[in-house]
Amino acid sequence: MNKTLLALALLGAYAGTAQAQSSVQIYGNVDAGVIKRTDQATAIGKRANNTLGFKGSEELGNGLKAIFQLEIRYEPDSGTIEQGAGGIQRPLFQGQSRVGLTGGFGTLRLGRGLTAFQESSIAFEPFHGIPSPSGFQTDLTVAGYTSDPLGLPGNSTNRFSNAVFYNSPEYMGWQLNTTIGTKEANNGAAVIGRGTALLPQYPANSGSETNPYSIAVTWKRGIFGAMVAHERNAVESEVSSVAGYVMATPEMKLMLSYQKQDQSHTKLINQDTKAWVLGANYTMGMSKFLAGYGQKQVDGLEKVKQFSVGYEYSLSKRTYIYADISNKKGAPAIAPSTNTSINFYSLGVNHSF
Amino acid sequence: MNKTLLALALLGAYAGTAQAQSSVQIYGNVDAGVIKRTDQATAIGKRANNTLGFKGSEELGNGLKAIFQLEIRYEPDSGTIEQGAGGIQRPLFQGQSRVGLTGGFGTLRLGRGLTAFQESSIAFEPFHGIPSPSGFQTDLTVAGYTSDPLGLPGNSTNRFSNAVFYNSPEYMGWQLNTTIGTKEANNGAAVIGRGTALLPQYPANSGSETNPYSIAVTWKRGIFGAMVAHERNAVESEVSSVAGYVMATPEMKLMLSYQKQDQSHTKLINQDTKAWVLGANYTMGMSKFLAGYGQKQVDGLEKVKQFSVGYEYSLSKRTYIYADISNKKGAPAIAPSTNTSINFYSLGVNHSF
Amino acid sequence: MNKTLLALALLGAYAGTAQAQSSVQIYGNVDAGVIKRTDQATAIGKRANNTLGFKGSEELGNGLKAIFQLEIRYEPDSGTIEQGAGGIQRPLFQGQSRVGLTGGFGTLRLGRGLTAFQESSIAFEPFHGIPSPSGFQTDLTVAGYTSDPLGLPGNSTNRFSNAVFYNSPEYMGWQLNTTIGTKEANNGAAVIGRGTALLPQYPANSGSETNPYSIAVTWKRGIFGAMVAHERNAVESEVSSVAGYVMATPEMKLMLSYQKQDQSHTKLINQDTKAWVLGANYTMGMSKFLAGYGQKQVDGLEKVKQFSVGYEYSLSKRTYIYADISNKKGAPAIAPSTNTSINFYSLGVNHSF
Repeated sequence: MNKTLLALALLGAYAGTAQAQSSVQIYGNVDAGVIKRTDQATAIGKRANNTLGFKGSEELGNGLKAIFQLEIRYEPDSGTIEQGAGGIQRPLFQGQSRVGLTGGFGTLRLGRGLTAFQESSIAFEPFHGIPSPSGFQTDLTVAGYTSDPLGLPGNSTNRFSNAVFYNSPEYMGWQLNTTIGTKEANNGAAVIGRGTALLPQYPANSGSETNPYSIAVTWKRGIFGAMVAHERNAVESEVSSVAGYVMATPEMKLMLSYQKQDQSHTKLINQDTKAWVLGANYTMGMSKFLAGYGQKQVDGLEKVKQFSVGYEYSLSKRTYIYADISNKKGAPAIAPSTNTSINFYSLGVNHSF
Repeated sequence: MNKTLLALALLGAYAGTAQAQSSVQIYGNVDAGVIKRTDQATAIGKRANNTLGFKGSEELGNGLKAIFQLEIRYEPDSGTIEQGAGGIQRPLFQGQSRVGLTGGFGTLRLGRGLTAFQESSIAFEPFHGIPSPSGFQTDLTVAGYTSDPLGLPGNSTNRFSNAVFYNSPEYMGWQLNTTIGTKEANNGAAVIGRGTALLPQYPANSGSETNPYSIAVTWKRGIFGAMVAHERNAVESEVSSVAGYVMATPEMKLMLSYQKQDQSHTKLINQDTKAWVLGANYTMGMSKFLAGYGQKQVDGLEKVKQFSVGYEYSLSKRTYIYADISNKKGAPAIAPSTNTSINFYSLGVNHSF
Repeated sequence: MNKTLLALALLGAYAGTAQAQSSVQIYGNVDAGVIKRTDQATAIGKRANNTLGFKGSEELGNGLKAIFQLEIRYEPDSGTIEQGAGGIQRPLFQGQSRVGLTGGFGTLRLGRGLTAFQESSIAFEPFHGIPSPSGFQTDLTVAGYTSDPLGLPGNSTNRFSNAVFYNSPEYMGWQLNTTIGTKEANNGAAVIGRGTALLPQYPANSGSETNPYSIAVTWKRGIFGAMVAHERNAVESEVSSVAGYVMATPEMKLMLSYQKQDQSHTKLINQDTKAWVLGANYTMGMSKFLAGYGQKQVDGLEKVKQFSVGYEYSLSKRTYIYADISNKKGAPAIAPSTNTSINFYSLGVNHSF
């Protein structure tokens, strides 16, 4: 929830000025807890992303609005900007930095943010897209795919920089969501791919040969929702996904997704990955139960299996405590070096503002 | 335009407290568009600087006020803090970080910000000081000069860190603006200058031998404005400038500047640079037309010539769209390696908040 | 003092929504002045820490509140994030990043912040804990101890990352304050300790073998205050402190602390450090006088002696100007390379918002 200066406008505070429609919202959340992985020391860490954001809009007339959103991401356990692999700091506005117009034609934005596929897929994942190893979003829900392989070191794996974002209006429950990136280079590290360390397929600071893009068509009708999506990144890995959910009862949401990644542009073996995730959410008063099971199969490698259960208890509109238990077997992502079974536990608090 | 908590004071929200005069303003802008340079891929980028700022003031009585301003700069296309050459991130508060007092004696501030010359010169540049290659501010308007050669890698070229800023009150249209920096070292890279790579004239983390300073005297009367300015940086390069404008009609502003840089302290050849810029702005309803032409001559090198036209259309008080076309010939700044003719195009949106 | 959106709630601005108890406060301060050290050029710098923070709370019922606080630290003279040794940037939220609950049971928080000892000791230090060489907080008040030796390069010396913070309610003037850190590694540099450069006692990115912790018991009654504290860091250096103050008159606060550090876990010689600080604050109208004297003795090394006087003049509730003079003799901290006598002067302004 946001505390917003918009309220000033409601109060007529700007009535005497030209800015009656102004607003800047400061919003965000802090999520911190105790986490434990089988092979690591007990740690303080996050379960969901931590954000501090600034957003606003301006009425332009005729139903048209200018909109912007700038979202800082950070690590509350160490006070740093959000860190990627190896502790490398991500961009300040890792969450998003976009500006654009919204109106009857839909929403058109420029900048950096989640791709159409990555954003749309969250509705079909049982842990509402959290990056915690308890969730499925960053690995199984996308079949191990990464959206930004040529980005800065430490960069996000599910965003496009230098992109145009378009979301159509909803029509009969249908919506078209697209993201198209430029071929710009971004000071990224080399990607060896089908090359060698000396002659990588994509040398450091490479641009893409083709425009990265992401398309997600979503559909909602009554208790049903569905998505068909396709995305290609800057090294021409492609991911496709179909997904659906049903509100079996008003308290019970069941969801299923299937996805496939094709990395034949940069790999000689292990080119194809298939994955599926089955999930359920059940709400009972202040409690919410989360459960998911999924498998990921990279051709030629051992199958990955993940099972997770979670519990959230709302202390208020903006604060909940949570506890998760998860197990992952045969997995590069959570246990890169060995084919072991890894357990993951988390217990913490999430506060929105 | 700013959305400000000042409104709270207007509302009497603090009437019961000791902070009746308090205010923090959150302000900024997002500028993003499609840009194309002759020799580069189409990109998403900025035309104007992107800011997210915090500022405020406190009444001290007798017309005296304490003031502060902290201004984040960022790149909306990638979500990072503003980047200098080579993608190196600049300071978080690249825009400025200053605190001080203002009153009948003028304004006195400490910290980091645009130098007196750099700030005053904007009024005489036809693209209102934007860093886009379409504009003249960062190259021809300052004759290729840089204000902070010993600053951190990636640092700004038109600011002083560790400085005292004084702006006099206006008297008969005259105003004195001065900036004086310390001799402090700032972990900057070496400047070879008249030395060698092994024995650079300014080794890494050098301080200045003399205090950098900047002086700009400005004058405004009716439809006329003028400036005389002089600045010396930490490696004792000096720049001098005279400039003027006239509001030929209420809609039409014509402007002209002439500037000269002397780099004899660090160079054996190519010591002197002369440049001039002629510009015009024409406002018609929601439309604004920008045009400029200028030349820069480094002694012993080929002359640089730049021609730019721009168009801005206001969708509202806080949002405009823009389109620029620019050509630059024989230029180190926009085409460092070759003496070619470079075209530059941009098309985008600028939203203030 | 903070300008806060809480005022909106007071105004009933959110009355129609579910967020009647919401609040985000933006707060901070800017402190900049001219500083001079015997052996360095005159510089623009800070005396107190510079902060830009965001904090808030939410009523959960039954006297329970969810709270968070995110505090940016920065250098106003250069506009960067706060810098540690060698100009290395510290975490964005160097001040603190914490979330938790507060209520009848006390306050329980997770994240990063000042340890219980470091926070409690400020009340017994005559320069209210400023990091300036004029103050005693960062060296003599803690007997040269550092709280986070395995943290990221440039990291703070008085905070725990990855920690649980608990403050009890006050009972008969007594309060228990504790901080417990995890054994997590944080990408820190190696600590040679009793090892060698090739085989350091703590290699790069080491975790701790034992949980770092900090305990401070404080007591307040009428004009008296006291503290007993003990802390152990990630390389098992330990610090103990006893301190007290008395309000000799309503205007005059006298304070004394004694502390001892034991570094026998990582050192073969110079293991023990003892220090004491005697201080006084005197308030007279808008003026405040600060004075302190202290000694630090590392066994086997020359004794360090520091004497400081300071003056603060309040221009208003939120703005004061200050002047300090300080001398330190035989000191590693302020003069690492030689056993000289170093003078330090500062003159500047501090503005809170």
